[in-house]
Amino acid sequence: MTQSIKVGIVGYGNLGRGVVQALRQNKDMELVAIFTRREPEQMKGEAGDNLRFEHISTVEQFKGSIDVMILCGGSATDLPEQTPFIASMFNTVDSFDTHAKIPEFFESVHAAAKKADTLSVISTGWDPGLFSLNRLLSEAILPEGKEYTFWGKGVSQGHSDAIRRVPGVKAGVQYTVPVESVINRIRSGETPELQTREKHLRQCFVVAEEGANRDEITQTIVNMPNYFADYDTTVTFITEEELKTQHHGMPHGGFVIRSGVTGEGTKQIIEFGLKLESNPEFTASVLVAYARAAYRLKKDGLSGAKTVFDIPLGYLSPKSADELRKELL
Amino acid sequence: MTQSIKVGIVGYGNLGRGVVQALRQNKDMELVAIFTRREPEQMKGEAGDNLRFEHISTVEQFKGSIDVMILCGGSATDLPEQTPFIASMFNTVDSFDTHAKIPEFFESVHAAAKKADTLSVISTGWDPGLFSLNRLLSEAILPEGKEYTFWGKGVSQGHSDAIRRVPGVKAGVQYTVPVESVINRIRSGETPELQTREKHLRQCFVVAEEGANRDEITQTIVNMPNYFADYDTTVTFITEEELKTQHHGMPHGGFVIRSGVTGEGTKQIIEFGLKLESNPEFTASVLVAYARAAYRLKKDGLSGAKTVFDIPLGYLSPKSADELRKELL
Repeated sequence: MTQSIKVGIVGYGNLGRGVVQALRQNKDMELVAIFTRREPEQMKGEAGDNLRFEHISTVEQFKGSIDVMILCGGSATDLPEQTPFIASMFNTVDSFDTHAKIPEFFESVHAAAKKADTLSVISTGWDPGLFSLNRLLSEAILPEGKEYTFWGKGVSQGHSDAIRRVPGVKAGVQYTVPVESVINRIRSGETPELQTREKHLRQCFVVAEEGANRDEITQTIVNMPNYFADYDTTVTFITEEELKTQHHGMPHGGFVIRSGVTGEGTKQIIEFGLKLESNPEFTASVLVAYARAAYRLKKDGLSGAKTVFDIPLGYLSPKSADELRKELL
Repeated sequence: MTQSIKVGIVGYGNLGRGVVQALRQNKDMELVAIFTRREPEQMKGEAGDNLRFEHISTVEQFKGSIDVMILCGGSATDLPEQTPFIASMFNTVDSFDTHAKIPEFFESVHAAAKKADTLSVISTGWDPGLFSLNRLLSEAILPEGKEYTFWGKGVSQGHSDAIRRVPGVKAGVQYTVPVESVINRIRSGETPELQTREKHLRQCFVVAEEGANRDEITQTIVNMPNYFADYDTTVTFITEEELKTQHHGMPHGGFVIRSGVTGEGTKQIIEFGLKLESNPEFTASVLVAYARAAYRLKKDGLSGAKTVFDIPLGYLSPKSADELRKELL
């Protein structure tokens, strides 16, 4: 190993904490500082270890001493502003995941990074990210076929928030659950046309306020448009204690399956799956691998916005091309 | 679509036939000719459609009129000579799959291609190839973890040949079968140390010659060193008719599973799997997608030998970068 890659983190929620942990597993990388909108001194107290926190307003002073910034803000409001701003000074990696807005986000980041001669890898993580890679790969290899993406079993933050807004609900969590029997049909070669309802179930675990009408809560949830009305939804009432002990994790995962044909109707199936005990820790690990790629692409003289589609996978590994051919090909 | 990619095929066995079929699914590519060591006129008779066959000795005359040659010879003796030879005139793609000899093969092809200013993608297919990509990807994302590759259920050509060399055996086929119960342990988070015998079974279906000693055949097979002695092997005697009707396909497949940890022992599992009714047709489809990539890399001004690790996945798809970001990210 020659020189370590100097990394900064912007934002210290679940994802930022995951990045701190992931960096410890990668000996060729070094964490310089974590940038936050909150009071750096207070953060230090909370985090309780030797991390260096800096206020986001000081970020410009770190130009030249940080190779890549890993952006850990949310896609709704943080990243659309943060990525172009940070890309005007640093190479960046983010996990922008609002699928419909990716083209627009790409253009805005690309303009900022091109102007500053920096390199930004956008929309990494697992969906978009690893799932996207597999959708592309399997479509390119099996152009005649049908593709399915299933998510879960996992916690959906948006749906959990929706439950908590229902009157009478004190707390709650929602799991998206793929329908196993349908996946098995696809794995055995069927290519069904599927309605929303047939692909996923939604399981809600709800802590009701004292005296709340549980039937009313249940009806409000299962009939909620956009979130639950199109799905088979179950609502289970639990205690606050049960919520804390049995539902504190952030598991997730899913599958991308392509069922294609070659020749005269020969069936060929490609499947990629994830089973994650912690969604943010895994997403953080993907961000860190792509931070290595961002650093190297910049070293190669490239600039502008890139996606997972533009990057040779060899750039993700700390191993040399020789080692990769010898050990992993 | 602007101009189609002009493709040649070298070798017309199962793989070459698969490439002809795969090209028909890719509208941006056009088959110019198939090169063979056999008599072109006779091939035309056998193939029975509008394919153009040429003797391999005429290949040089096609310089300038073929963009990429897809090499469909075997790894044992054909490709080590064929790839450097063809790479001295054309861009190439092959599926060289002798894992231990890949570094040496790479050097030899790289030298030839660099000298001729052509580009060669070596060792594509699914293992090496797609499985290699997934080994790299999951190791880069989960550096602390354990990885397993399982093959099958599928026909192993080498093991089938070994059976056929046993005295008293008229014909036969061997299936490599992954041990499902072990895969399920890994999927549920265990990371066992596995002996060869615990990962795969070997199922042999044998047609015996009349009057042959079946017990002797069975003992010879199950005790054969390198091939069967380290495995739990079953031998089932069948009729020639059964062999033809029930064992004529060339199915294969398998899984690459990485079980890793992030943070404080959080389990994360990445799995990639293939279920193929035809191994050669699928391998051919991978070759064709990488032929597109070879053509484009050369257009970008690159030359020399490349592997799947060096190539952005976007190069495999006929879609533009804009379309990919919009539709697949």
